[in-house]
Amino acid sequence: MSSATPPAAEPADLLGALPPMWLRDNCPCPECRDPHSGQKLFQITDLPRELAVASAAPQHDNGANAVDVVWSPDGHRSRYPVQWLLANRPGETAEADHRSEAGKQLWQAADLAGALPEADWAAYLANPGERARVLEAVQRLGFALLRAVPTEEGQVLAVAESFGFVRETNYGKLFDVRVEPNPDNLAFTSARITPHTDNPYRDPVPTIQLLHCLSNAAEGGDSGLVDGFRAAALLREEDPEAFGVLTRTPVPFVYRDARTELTAFRPLIDTDPLGRIREVRFNNRSIGTLRLPAAELEAFYAAYRTFAELLLRPGLQLDFRLAPGDCVVFDNTRLLHARTAFEQSGARHLQGCYADLDGLAGTLAVLRRSAALDELDELFIGPGAAEYLGEPVTIAEHMLQAGALAEAAGAPAHLVAAALLHDIGHFHGPVSGQELMAGTDNRHSHTGADLLARWFGPEVTEPVRLHVAAKRYLCAVEPGYRARLSEASEYTLQVQGGPMGDAEAADFAALPGAADAVAVRRWDEQAKDAGAAIPGFEHFRPLLTALLRR
Amino acid sequence: MSSATPPAAEPADLLGALPPMWLRDNCPCPECRDPHSGQKLFQITDLPRELAVASAAPQHDNGANAVDVVWSPDGHRSRYPVQWLLANRPGETAEADHRSEAGKQLWQAADLAGALPEADWAAYLANPGERARVLEAVQRLGFALLRAVPTEEGQVLAVAESFGFVRETNYGKLFDVRVEPNPDNLAFTSARITPHTDNPYRDPVPTIQLLHCLSNAAEGGDSGLVDGFRAAALLREEDPEAFGVLTRTPVPFVYRDARTELTAFRPLIDTDPLGRIREVRFNNRSIGTLRLPAAELEAFYAAYRTFAELLLRPGLQLDFRLAPGDCVVFDNTRLLHARTAFEQSGARHLQGCYADLDGLAGTLAVLRRSAALDELDELFIGPGAAEYLGEPVTIAEHMLQAGALAEAAGAPAHLVAAALLHDIGHFHGPVSGQELMAGTDNRHSHTGADLLARWFGPEVTEPVRLHVAAKRYLCAVEPGYRARLSEASEYTLQVQGGPMGDAEAADFAALPGAADAVAVRRWDEQAKDAGAAIPGFEHFRPLLTALLRR
Repeated sequence: MSSATPPAAEPADLLGALPPMWLRDNCPCPECRDPHSGQKLFQITDLPRELAVASAAPQHDNGANAVDVVWSPDGHRSRYPVQWLLANRPGETAEADHRSEAGKQLWQAADLAGALPEADWAAYLANPGERARVLEAVQRLGFALLRAVPTEEGQVLAVAESFGFVRETNYGKLFDVRVEPNPDNLAFTSARITPHTDNPYRDPVPTIQLLHCLSNAAEGGDSGLVDGFRAAALLREEDPEAFGVLTRTPVPFVYRDARTELTAFRPLIDTDPLGRIREVRFNNRSIGTLRLPAAELEAFYAAYRTFAELLLRPGLQLDFRLAPGDCVVFDNTRLLHARTAFEQSGARHLQGCYADLDGLAGTLAVLRRSAALDELDELFIGPGAAEYLGEPVTIAEHMLQAGALAEAAGAPAHLVAAALLHDIGHFHGPVSGQELMAGTDNRHSHTGADLLARWFGPEVTEPVRLHVAAKRYLCAVEPGYRARLSEASEYTLQVQGGPMGDAEAADFAALPGAADAVAVRRWDEQAKDAGAAIPGFEHFRPLLTALLRR
Repeated sequence: MSSATPPAAEPADLLGALPPMWLRDNCPCPECRDPHSGQKLFQITDLPRELAVASAAPQHDNGANAVDVVWSPDGHRSRYPVQWLLANRPGETAEADHRSEAGKQLWQAADLAGALPEADWAAYLANPGERARVLEAVQRLGFALLRAVPTEEGQVLAVAESFGFVRETNYGKLFDVRVEPNPDNLAFTSARITPHTDNPYRDPVPTIQLLHCLSNAAEGGDSGLVDGFRAAALLREEDPEAFGVLTRTPVPFVYRDARTELTAFRPLIDTDPLGRIREVRFNNRSIGTLRLPAAELEAFYAAYRTFAELLLRPGLQLDFRLAPGDCVVFDNTRLLHARTAFEQSGARHLQGCYADLDGLAGTLAVLRRSAALDELDELFIGPGAAEYLGEPVTIAEHMLQAGALAEAAGAPAHLVAAALLHDIGHFHGPVSGQELMAGTDNRHSHTGADLLARWFGPEVTEPVRLHVAAKRYLCAVEPGYRARLSEASEYTLQVQGGPMGDAEAADFAALPGAADAVAVRRWDEQAKDAGAAIPGFEHFRPLLTALLRR
């Protein structure tokens, strides 16, 4: 049988270009990384200075397709899944930082016409998918509107706590936005407030702001939002010099009242080390006195003015009116908010609070994880209950059995997942399993792999993609394999192209994911036992959760 | 009398180099700046694009020494105190940003030997000066130790709330640091933890951490702190290339458990737009997989290792042991904390929480404001009760009366303050008022100005510094002035050098602060009326608070 298992990819090809320190720092062994918390257990200084790969060998026990590395000079051993090595190869595109412009969808008003990111508060509370959609809008567009939030005082805190943690400030846990006598802040008057970000004098600045409308019977007092990242990107395009000045000039922002005094020195446009827009601060009310050489002051004021004009450019600002019960949640490091002046005679009362983007991102990530698993679970319950191409088990039973077989064989988690999910493409492809049995190849392995790529990395998707090819390969190269196929599998083999020819089999064997796919295929063939006890989908949730893409 | 008031500084000299937009943006008039909140009332885009000074004229109504500007093309009028113009001249040194290395005192262990910044909790609570000293240590050195904090659970929150606001996270409002079964974080084991900053995967990262020791009977479990700014500055000195790499490479920091998932992309060393060290993040446990071209990965790992070695260099780390009741408060964007391994058999239990530097800075600023006024108040009550060089009023009565006269004359706030505080130097100089009367000039005007410079800008200190010279000037140039001096003042005039000669008087008149000093001097001469009703020091607190330097 060993002759039939394709050789793993050549370790030298995979490891040649990898910096040894980077590779070793990513060693997944339980000595290097705590299996429970996932945290690294060693210091970078614990590694030998002259670290090198002493030997590397392909490894495929229990269906793994991995490379075993022995390190010099300390003799440490690491095992890297081939798919991990392929996916994390140096030079591959970095994951988008969700705080910088690279992780955002920039907009101007017309882009959102008639399609405000909004949701009903009750639906948001009841439905995790709705919750994820709202939080994703805040992350991607910079804001979302919740409607029909109960118009009770303090309710804004419940909204913040639904996704994160309230950031208390000198204004309290929450603050009231309404006309006050002798206000310390112009927000608490009826004056027009032009587009600005809040609290630029705070450092760290609150990254999320919420405003909940309790009443708005005043004439005027309409709201506006401007995408500051979009405006900053326009500035970079139209006047790169001004953009540069604003990213390089720390501006003193100042707030002072009887109980506090805050000063922060931050640029109007903050970029990350790669030069990508990351934060915008803009608040004419609280800019203090800049102390710079005259030429730099002139350059700053020219750039500041150009940016200020750009922020007021028609078409950028999204105008809307908060009705009682509306709560707008927005990214205070990106969106500028504004309001028109209003008549003091009408009642206008908002309550606001601050929170932070990291808590929101964490909640969203967990919602996505469990949404992915819920979606998979529903596939097992719904279409999975269908008969499996004439086999004595349903599709769901077949897949659960395959996963259980992989697990029982001691296979690594990603292969258990691949075995469990290998036929998922039967549910979603344009050609159904029934049609496959009627003679049309539904290419379900590719459909399934593409579907799974939403949630899992290549270590899970590629064995799924290749599991049909693996059957055609095994039937070609392993004596007696084809004879053991079930009747339905023999039929579909022909629809799928029959056993591979010699050249095709050699090409397949050379693929880096071939060994993983062959392992999955063997569990696939075995998982048609109507009498076997099989675990439910719930059994695999923790394993799948750990594999979900970040 | 007008001939005796020196001409104000030439406006052209003062305004020539000032960029018009900057000057106008700092217009202090009540149309431009809300008199109550101090917030700006106009947008930069409200200003005419072709802004220019149409005319500028010296102005000294009511003792002010100011420049009146009329703007073209909009005809707006601004009045700038001369001392403000001098103090804020472009090119003058910027105020130190208290978040960057420029606002810090960097240290290694030996610098603090035997002099840990520490305070007793009861004294900290009772005494605002002690509170300011502790908070100032956190701001300047990065940490302080509070002793004898009650060893009650939750007490760490009271410590945080004494200066700021607790930052709640997925770990709760507070977290327990003790050995846990199946910990999600190595902090909750008995393992050694090398120097690190907390929560680098959070963005914004908590900028302050508190750790309160409830019990520490374990063998081991000692604490250590390393000044990460000092280490980063050493790296910049010893290996500027490595320093550059670490400031330019965003590093993925990752934390993941069943309830949350946090990812932040931030460099290990973050600099401000001027290249000054501003934040350090260092945590081997949570660095994720970097995806960069191989050459960049190699450069990063070399620099990362060099910095890690430097952080472990003997002499950098301050070692101490937390005893029950100790609470360490430290800057989590600057200081790395560490602990030695400990025996699981002994009880070791800390409680921790997070807070932010901006809240602490705000509390410290307010404490300093009121400490300054308390100190001045005590001078009025204590030495101020002494007789005033033989005059019929005490020194305190004389100064309060001078302040009241300035106020009654409608003088600007800084001149009311200068009049109120002009003789403060009599209390602090090396030569007493008694000695002055015995024939030794105590140079009290200079002593007083230097003392006041701790709290006030030149608009207050310079009229004080020149108030003796102003007497010598007035006696020289104003007919009849000398004849109106009190007997004591006539005597001290001679000790102080007598009336100025022509050349000296001309030089004095040319000083930018001369007009202010002359105004103060006139109130000084009048403020010797034993029968006048005078306000107490409390009356002037709000005016003085508003003038205190930021």
